[in-house]
Amino acid sequence: MDASVTPLRHGGLSLVQTTDFFYPLVDDPYMQGKIAAANVLSDLYAMGVTECDNMLMLVGISTKMTEKERDIVMPLIMRGFKDCALEAGTNVTGGQTVMNPWCTIGGVASSVCQTSELIMPDNAVVGDVLVLTKPLGTQVAVNAHQWLDLQDRWNRIKLVVSEDDVRKAYLRSIDSMARLNRTAARLMHKYNAHAATDVTGFGLLGHAQNLAAHQKNEVSFVIHNLPVIAKMAAVAKACGNMFQLLQGLSAETSGGMLICLPREQAAAYCKDIEKTEGYQAWIIGIVEKGNRTARIIDKPRVIEVPAKEKEGELW
Amino acid sequence: MDASVTPLRHGGLSLVQTTDFFYPLVDDPYMQGKIAAANVLSDLYAMGVTECDNMLMLVGISTKMTEKERDIVMPLIMRGFKDCALEAGTNVTGGQTVMNPWCTIGGVASSVCQTSELIMPDNAVVGDVLVLTKPLGTQVAVNAHQWLDLQDRWNRIKLVVSEDDVRKAYLRSIDSMARLNRTAARLMHKYNAHAATDVTGFGLLGHAQNLAAHQKNEVSFVIHNLPVIAKMAAVAKACGNMFQLLQGLSAETSGGMLICLPREQAAAYCKDIEKTEGYQAWIIGIVEKGNRTARIIDKPRVIEVPAKEKEGELW
Repeated sequence: MDASVTPLRHGGLSLVQTTDFFYPLVDDPYMQGKIAAANVLSDLYAMGVTECDNMLMLVGISTKMTEKERDIVMPLIMRGFKDCALEAGTNVTGGQTVMNPWCTIGGVASSVCQTSELIMPDNAVVGDVLVLTKPLGTQVAVNAHQWLDLQDRWNRIKLVVSEDDVRKAYLRSIDSMARLNRTAARLMHKYNAHAATDVTGFGLLGHAQNLAAHQKNEVSFVIHNLPVIAKMAAVAKACGNMFQLLQGLSAETSGGMLICLPREQAAAYCKDIEKTEGYQAWIIGIVEKGNRTARIIDKPRVIEVPAKEKEGELW
Repeated sequence: MDASVTPLRHGGLSLVQTTDFFYPLVDDPYMQGKIAAANVLSDLYAMGVTECDNMLMLVGISTKMTEKERDIVMPLIMRGFKDCALEAGTNVTGGQTVMNPWCTIGGVASSVCQTSELIMPDNAVVGDVLVLTKPLGTQVAVNAHQWLDLQDRWNRIKLVVSEDDVRKAYLRSIDSMARLNRTAARLMHKYNAHAATDVTGFGLLGHAQNLAAHQKNEVSFVIHNLPVIAKMAAVAKACGNMFQLLQGLSAETSGGMLICLPREQAAAYCKDIEKTEGYQAWIIGIVEKGNRTARIIDKPRVIEVPAKEKEGELW
């Protein structure tokens, strides 16, 4: 499960908790803070929990930053984290800050719920379809963006992508990673989701396999479509086996929800999320009879997700 | 407050939470794990909360350890943490592990409580006395123990302390830091404590000042007695202003409870904790009318706390 669920001493309530911290991966401190908070909260949302009661923040200030860098960067990271918590309808009430060689940012998200607020991630049935709520390719985009300043690396991909493409994909990634999976979780209740997980460090297939392995029914997941941030599939291909994006193994940060939904509800789910948030979601596969595994078909269809997706945004 | 208290949506309940992580300070990985867990839990106990519902563990594995070191050291640290959680009647249900230049260990402790389970730390009244439940000097002892292998440093203190004294004080510190403040918290309810905090990084006086500053009544704290692990006051003195132990500013890890108790209950509190746990507690000061500050009198009485305190222990 993405979050721990502890039954409490008090009338049918459970404590749902998760923690996550990592090292900065984008060069905008404020957005990095938002990404860290969205990433922690995502584990609650994957369990169908939409109300986070409290957050704590975990901060490591790099011993290698100058005093000036610290005084500018760390408050921005922390403000981003707090703003994202507010956006999620919760608060940061405490935490811990230490000095550390590497800068770290993360937190703890907790919710006290009735059992009915939870969607246990083990009820997929044959005939369900798989929905994904954010495009893949955040790690590829973040790396490609770093390579704009590394001639050797850039030379490997410059035939398949322009600098402008990379900048757009990078901004799209930041926007995607900082976006909350809260609406996705709310709609999971409305459309009767049978199981869900959020896609992070193990990539789409890694998390799909983990979700499949824990199903009560004898089912397997088959993935046909891979929605990928524009041009990042080409970049990944140009890098050989480095990312394994099309094998579903490229790490994502604060990725989308992977949800098992009744077939007849899935299209409405995707339409609703687009109407509510202005972002697309995709039906990417099916649940069939099987031995609790997940796989991607031989030649999956790559869906190029435009960098400029939301109307009125800058890129 | 030592822990954050968040009112919940459900019938009068509150979520009480705290997090802490730090770098190892003793060379016994298993005991280090226990110390880390006891240290996290201590913030709940300071609020009178005796039932922790869930713990998460935060681990940083040092990138500088060899694979063999990692495979031996990290599982021991984690086992110590988990064993201490079990001792506290709770469980570690999740957490996060990352690679980091420095080894880190810490966690999150959460409890969902009725308001009646909490002792808000702001009700001290004139006439209360101050009780401390663990001796001071853990940082001095840990440092002195490291100096056994540093000739220069050792030369500074060898006139006031023997190697054997240092080893005993170090073991006493480990035992003290790994000891839960749970009984101390339980007895706070039984003997009607008015306010409490746990003594950690800011030292006895630092935490006393913080507690005093947050009182509802116009009170001040005056500290007369300093219980210190045997010989560590002499070591601190020999080091000049380095520790500021007798000024109440030497950092403690997983230190004792500092409690404001009605005068007529304090002796019974100390007797009860000794009977229950086999450890001494001390009346160290008084609460008088004042402007919410804390101070140590000019020549406080130093109480030498023997390294061998518990019957039947090895040192």
